[in-house]
Amino acid sequence: MTSQHIVSSFDRDLEALQARLMKMGDQVEKAISRALEALETRDLKLSEEVRQGDRVIDAMDEEIKAEAARVLALRAPAASDLRTVLSVMNMCSHLERCGDYAKNIAKRTTVLIDTTSIGGTEPALRRMAHMVEQMLADALEAYIQRDAAKAMEVRDRDLEVDQMYNTLFRALLTHMMEDPRNITACMHLHFIAKNIERMGDHATSIAEQTIYLVTGEMPDENRPKGDTTAYNPQGNLAT
Amino acid sequence: MTSQHIVSSFDRDLEALQARLMKMGDQVEKAISRALEALETRDLKLSEEVRQGDRVIDAMDEEIKAEAARVLALRAPAASDLRTVLSVMNMCSHLERCGDYAKNIAKRTTVLIDTTSIGGTEPALRRMAHMVEQMLADALEAYIQRDAAKAMEVRDRDLEVDQMYNTLFRALLTHMMEDPRNITACMHLHFIAKNIERMGDHATSIAEQTIYLVTGEMPDENRPKGDTTAYNPQGNLAT
Repeated sequence: MTSQHIVSSFDRDLEALQARLMKMGDQVEKAISRALEALETRDLKLSEEVRQGDRVIDAMDEEIKAEAARVLALRAPAASDLRTVLSVMNMCSHLERCGDYAKNIAKRTTVLIDTTSIGGTEPALRRMAHMVEQMLADALEAYIQRDAAKAMEVRDRDLEVDQMYNTLFRALLTHMMEDPRNITACMHLHFIAKNIERMGDHATSIAEQTIYLVTGEMPDENRPKGDTTAYNPQGNLAT
Repeated sequence: MTSQHIVSSFDRDLEALQARLMKMGDQVEKAISRALEALETRDLKLSEEVRQGDRVIDAMDEEIKAEAARVLALRAPAASDLRTVLSVMNMCSHLERCGDYAKNIAKRTTVLIDTTSIGGTEPALRRMAHMVEQMLADALEAYIQRDAAKAMEVRDRDLEVDQMYNTLFRALLTHMMEDPRNITACMHLHFIAKNIERMGDHATSIAEQTIYLVTGEMPDENRPKGDTTAYNPQGNLAT
């Protein structure tokens, strides 16, 4: 009976931890969505709210990590239970980074507020961000369900995000070359695109945690990588 | 005697973990230094070596985390010992990210290989990177010595890195506006500058781990933040 009781307590702790993680995920998805809405509608007030809201996300991160450390200290879980608690801490860090990126997008929006949209870039960024939000939601769902197939599918979707980033990179370069007055705005839009692309990488890392938990192995490192801008000089545009 | 024996075993485990972390730190500092040397001298072979070398850093990251998890499972440390093991995992992640940034710099170098240097940017980047390498070395040293004052001093130095980044951001914008043929190269140099600036943030996070371990509190969030480019539109240059 005692052993049964201990196991249940641990399970309850773990459920509480996971519930908090899901709540943090919701908050991060909302921050991303609102950051992009603020950018598209040039809504200074909303972007300010996103910036302030990152404190809530940071606080959640700290609470989850403190709680996970408490569970480790109190229950001293072994093997797969230990892995699960460590995976919560890990996923929590990835979510916190996504929150930082959303905040950074909101900051850049305050810079862009008086500029006009450049050739449909903002709607493209919003679509890209929406894809990443969905990846985050599905990666967390896959984790809760310990569904490795679903996690694999999330991981594969990162390729599309990378492709969208490549297209934007190229488009923004063209806008800069066409009119130097666009350069500052394009630089910020470019960083926003890169931020979204990185959030996709974090969603992928969350998915990989699930794959690791379920299968005991990290998926092959050679996942499809689609951001080719660091390899491909786009020299034909530049020289 | 038994208790004494257990304590010593844990201490030995911890020492081994910390020794590995230091070795990983060395490897990362070397990667940064070599990546910037390859950029400055347009050395394709060296940049290729940096890219390949990131596998070693990734492997070290995995080994340290696996070893830390083993220590947690085996010794079930409580309170401050637990915090120490978790801090090793945390610092290890920060080092691994720095390794990724060095790899990314090396990738961008292969793109820049046929372009000429733009107005002394590369030497400026190297100086900035050198400062970050030193921050990483000192942050790890502060950790080993549990020296919070030294860690605080590392954290303060991040302001200088941010200021160097701001200066470079401004200079690169000017180069792009002056000659659109510079745009692609400047975009990559800009990302390299941002990568170095982010490595400074990671060195700061490592320093903060030590402050937390020693004082039990995270330093005030309002640390001096010097990257103002997301706030300050530099509009006078752009419009």
